[in-house]
Amino acid sequence: MEYVQYAIRELFPVAERIETAGGKVARVNVGDPVPYFGTPKYILDALAKAAKEGRTGYGRSPGEKPFLEAVARRYKRRYNFSPDPDSIFATYGVSEAIQFLNASLMEKGRGCLMFSPYYPAYIPQLKIYGGEPCLSTCDEERGWAPDFDELGRQARRARAKGLDLKYLHVINPCNPTGAVWGRKELAELAKVANNEGLLLVSDEIYDEMVFDGKFTSMCQVAKGQPLMLLNGLSKNWCATGLRLGWAVLHGKGEAMDSLRDAFTRLASVRLCASMPAQYAGIEALDNLKEHAKFVRHFNSEVKKRSDYCWKRLNEIPGISCQRARGAFYLFPKIDLGRSGCRTDKEFVKRLLEEQKVWAVQGSGFGCGGHLRIVTLPPIETLEAACSGIERMMGKG
Amino acid sequence: MEYVQYAIRELFPVAERIETAGGKVARVNVGDPVPYFGTPKYILDALAKAAKEGRTGYGRSPGEKPFLEAVARRYKRRYNFSPDPDSIFATYGVSEAIQFLNASLMEKGRGCLMFSPYYPAYIPQLKIYGGEPCLSTCDEERGWAPDFDELGRQARRARAKGLDLKYLHVINPCNPTGAVWGRKELAELAKVANNEGLLLVSDEIYDEMVFDGKFTSMCQVAKGQPLMLLNGLSKNWCATGLRLGWAVLHGKGEAMDSLRDAFTRLASVRLCASMPAQYAGIEALDNLKEHAKFVRHFNSEVKKRSDYCWKRLNEIPGISCQRARGAFYLFPKIDLGRSGCRTDKEFVKRLLEEQKVWAVQGSGFGCGGHLRIVTLPPIETLEAACSGIERMMGKG
Repeated sequence: MEYVQYAIRELFPVAERIETAGGKVARVNVGDPVPYFGTPKYILDALAKAAKEGRTGYGRSPGEKPFLEAVARRYKRRYNFSPDPDSIFATYGVSEAIQFLNASLMEKGRGCLMFSPYYPAYIPQLKIYGGEPCLSTCDEERGWAPDFDELGRQARRARAKGLDLKYLHVINPCNPTGAVWGRKELAELAKVANNEGLLLVSDEIYDEMVFDGKFTSMCQVAKGQPLMLLNGLSKNWCATGLRLGWAVLHGKGEAMDSLRDAFTRLASVRLCASMPAQYAGIEALDNLKEHAKFVRHFNSEVKKRSDYCWKRLNEIPGISCQRARGAFYLFPKIDLGRSGCRTDKEFVKRLLEEQKVWAVQGSGFGCGGHLRIVTLPPIETLEAACSGIERMMGKG
Repeated sequence: MEYVQYAIRELFPVAERIETAGGKVARVNVGDPVPYFGTPKYILDALAKAAKEGRTGYGRSPGEKPFLEAVARRYKRRYNFSPDPDSIFATYGVSEAIQFLNASLMEKGRGCLMFSPYYPAYIPQLKIYGGEPCLSTCDEERGWAPDFDELGRQARRARAKGLDLKYLHVINPCNPTGAVWGRKELAELAKVANNEGLLLVSDEIYDEMVFDGKFTSMCQVAKGQPLMLLNGLSKNWCATGLRLGWAVLHGKGEAMDSLRDAFTRLASVRLCASMPAQYAGIEALDNLKEHAKFVRHFNSEVKKRSDYCWKRLNEIPGISCQRARGAFYLFPKIDLGRSGCRTDKEFVKRLLEEQKVWAVQGSGFGCGGHLRIVTLPPIETLEAACSGIERMMGKG
């Protein structure tokens, strides 16, 4: 079980100790917008309504029809993409959708193609079912763009070692880098998946959190090839604690039919997703006016915070940081030599203990010598975080 | 994935077709009390309050402290048992707790000791992680009591075949038989687990749904040995769709420490359980007066329905049925020869198609030649169900 790790929460006992003793921790570790922005009132009202109406019995295992239809409507409206509601599954967050994916496709000797830095939970979710990741490092200098030569090389190397690759996993906008890949990159990725016979998995949980408003979904590019889209209420709708996500399984053929069948079976043995969350979810997805208002405000605020933090970090000797184009993360590179720490893990531990700043080590995202900074807190907190990091960088 | 089955929901498309065509189906298949009794208003109010207060951000991965403390208080109050809140995990229903258990302990070559008939989801949840069940059939003639000789024989046989047994899984009160095992049986089971070096897993999700009010929890009997208790809001609190369960891991030693560590890790990679459900859960657990009122009413009603159905079924030639002492199920034996069906699966399919009665085949619970009948619906529905079964029994 040692491989089941989640770097983002591992220093929790240390932070709790500091706060219990009256200290104030600048938390830039967890990507939860709710403490800073709050779930929009119209969604909370819809949740309260679902409670009052007693929507608390078992529902359909793949999800309530009206909720799945609301999800399908959103794809049509936003991306002119028409998934069949019967190919959409409501899950306990995207985490469960990824669990279904790996339970369906993984076993010893199989794996998937994935980029590093990656979202940490992907790896244990893969390994629990016997799978192994084949990692391709993104190009930091080019704003964390995918490196297609390197991707092909890694895939060939993994296959030569006997790893049976099953899917290509993309997260866009990216956690932890804040990169947003465009149509050109996506088309190239779709081509790779197609050539290699891989299911294309696109986690787009931050798809409305893009600072310049431009986002291309994989469904607009990967026409007609096996595709799984992941999304949920956590980020765009600012409702992480509702634990409601979804998976869209799109594409024809025996492999996709068998994947849909596996998802149907896996959904049935855990009965159903949260019912009040699904009924709140219908309103969350359909109330376009309120949602647009929230997203506008959110993105404009987060852009300010992100840009402030980006500028401030780049002023610190020994730190360089790519600008984020979406989501709410920065992933600066740190020259560990200047801090007197041997690893980024030691750096974040001392950063928390000595400076009361809680960031996460890049190695937890498969990319050592970096930090992940969440840019959701107000400027004062980000200022405190950056100052703490700056002081750490003078200790080497 | 063929082994991932859930007999209770598999005829859903057939039932949907009948109802879409205007037919009325007597549903005695799903053990959901909510459509018949409704989630108690004080719990719905607490859920609405959690929504209004915006309890919709991420929480602690193992569960919110106040919720875990409320769970601990309940065990103290009810069973004079004091679990450490840090050894309690809030999960998406008991299903997820069982998933954590199997992800932690199972791999190819391992298994668990379990009784048949069993709750169907246990088996796929085990097999997904490579585990195999070692089944011991209960003694129908003695009201589905455990047969300890048979249990020992099965365990020895499995071990002789090289299966590394890890836990003994009990569900009491029992789904699907309605049996309630007493202190004597539990003590014997605890002894078996102790002698065989097995973790004792006790699913007690129906522990307040006992018709004569007498229930002994495994925690009152299995003092000091490795124990996992499972429970949740679904049944006793009539809130299946909230998907909130819990696991208590009790006991000292390296194996239990390592199990708690595995649960902590598995909980962290899926972030947290539903936050509004946990805050509603605190009120559900702490409001003793309202809860007692609900349970009294519920048990007195269900006992009437269960006894009606039990009497009526036993009047049908070719059917014999043990009386239920708790939960809300009956598990009659049917003489298939009288129905003209070769299997109980064929029986329930024809029962639905021809009689519009939706029951579940016993083979879905590991015990062929039986039916599982849910005794939650009003007497008229149970009457219609029994009459449909009676007509089927005259077709052979």
